[in-house]
Amino acid sequence: MRGMFRATLITLVPEAFPGPLGVSILGRAEEKGLWALETIDLRGFGVGKHRNVDDTPAGGGAGMVIRPDVAAAAIDSVALEGRPLVYLSPRGKPFDQQKARDWAAGPGVVFFCGRFEGLDERVIEARGMEEVSLGDFVLAGGEVAAMAFIEATVRLLPGVAGNEASLTEESFEQGLLEHPHYTMPRAWEGRPTPEVLLSGDHKRIEEWRRNSAKALTKQRRPDLYAAYSKTPEFQPPENGDEHD
Amino acid sequence: MRGMFRATLITLVPEAFPGPLGVSILGRAEEKGLWALETIDLRGFGVGKHRNVDDTPAGGGAGMVIRPDVAAAAIDSVALEGRPLVYLSPRGKPFDQQKARDWAAGPGVVFFCGRFEGLDERVIEARGMEEVSLGDFVLAGGEVAAMAFIEATVRLLPGVAGNEASLTEESFEQGLLEHPHYTMPRAWEGRPTPEVLLSGDHKRIEEWRRNSAKALTKQRRPDLYAAYSKTPEFQPPENGDEHD
Repeated sequence: MRGMFRATLITLVPEAFPGPLGVSILGRAEEKGLWALETIDLRGFGVGKHRNVDDTPAGGGAGMVIRPDVAAAAIDSVALEGRPLVYLSPRGKPFDQQKARDWAAGPGVVFFCGRFEGLDERVIEARGMEEVSLGDFVLAGGEVAAMAFIEATVRLLPGVAGNEASLTEESFEQGLLEHPHYTMPRAWEGRPTPEVLLSGDHKRIEEWRRNSAKALTKQRRPDLYAAYSKTPEFQPPENGDEHD
Repeated sequence: MRGMFRATLITLVPEAFPGPLGVSILGRAEEKGLWALETIDLRGFGVGKHRNVDDTPAGGGAGMVIRPDVAAAAIDSVALEGRPLVYLSPRGKPFDQQKARDWAAGPGVVFFCGRFEGLDERVIEARGMEEVSLGDFVLAGGEVAAMAFIEATVRLLPGVAGNEASLTEESFEQGLLEHPHYTMPRAWEGRPTPEVLLSGDHKRIEEWRRNSAKALTKQRRPDLYAAYSKTPEFQPPENGDEHD
C-alpha cells in the first residue's frame, strides 16, 4: 500500500490555510486520511529579537528580499523523504496537468511560498529548489499558487474524486479542451439540448463530443491544437452540421 | 474618485472564502475599504426541496453538470454594474498579467465558480459569460482560480501594495522574467553576493539586472523571449562575465 500524500508548506501566512483546501472533496479526502497538509511558519526561523525574515535588496531598489539563512533554516527543518522541494515563482516552469500527474504518483511535495520581492537566489541554488509557476502573472505570495497545485494534484489521488471515470474525460487528459456539457431541463430559454445527445446512440454521442472537443481546441487554443496534431491519435474535426 | 473594486463570487463552497484573500496585504486592503469580497451561495438557487443544483449529463457519462436555470437564477441576482461576468474554466483564455491590469482598471469582476463536470453550455452562451482559465490543469472547482485572479488584480489597485515602485520592476511588466534577488548576509554558505550589486554603481547594477532578466527569460521561457524580441525595446543580452 502506498503511503499518504503529504503537502508541507513553508509560509509567512499559515493562517491562509486550509482555506479552499479544507472544503468539498479535498477536505473530505483529508478527513479520510488520503492526504495531509502541514504548514511551517517561516517567521519562527527569523533572526534577532524581531525575528526578521527579510532585508533590503543588495544593489538597492524597492521592496524586501527573504534572507537565505532564514529560508534555509526553515527548509532544513523539513524531512523531504523523497519529496520535491518547490519554490513558487513566476520565473519557474509553468505548472500543467502532466506535473499534477507526476506529483500525484509520488509521496508529496514541499512548497516554499515567497512573499515580498522574492527569495535570495543563493538559497534557491544551494538547496536545489525547483521553481514552478502558476502562470504569467504576479501574486502577492506563493500561497494561492500552492493551493492550486495541491488541489490539481490531490484530486488525482485514488479515492479522492467521487468518480474516477470522469478524470479521464476532462480537459488536457487527451491534449484537448473538454467538450460542452448539457443537462436538465431539455429546453431552457428557447435553447434546446443538442439532439444527438438525446439520441441514445452512444457511438454518435462519442463522435460528437470528440469532434466538439477538437473544434473547440482548434478555435480557442491553437497552441494546444498544434501539439495535438502531432500525436498518433490526431484526426481533424469533421465539418458535420451537428455542431457549429 | 474611483469606486471601490468589488469581487462577487457565485460558489457552492462560500466557506472556502476569504482564506488567503483575508490575510496579508489583501486582507489589510479590504479592511481599509480598497476592495470588497462578496460570496453568493449557488445552493440557495437550487430546485425542489433538496435544492438540487446539478443533474446527470445529457448523452450519459460520468459526473454531474450544473443546471442552466439554477446558474442563471444566481447570476441574475447579481447587479453586474459594468463588471465582466467570468466563468472559471480550463477551456477559457489563459489569465495573464495584462488581464489583471485590465480588471484592476475597472469596477470589479463577477466570478461563477464551477464544480462537478462543469456548467451547462447554454447558460454560458445565454449570459455572455467570459471563460477564463488559470492554466492547463484541472481543479476540483473554480474557487482557487478565482482567488488567484483576485489576488493578482487587487494587488495592482492604488494603495494596496506597500511599495508601488516595485510593481513596475517585476516579472511580465516588461515582457521578461524578473532578475535574481540578493540580500543579507553578504556571504552565506560560501556563496557571495554578486560583486556588481555591492559596487554602488547604479548604472552597472541596472544593466546587470536587465541583462540577467533577458538571459533568464531566453533560457527558461523561449516563448516569452520570442515575443520580447519583437518589441521596440528589444536588445539581446550581453555575454559579459558578470553573470553566468
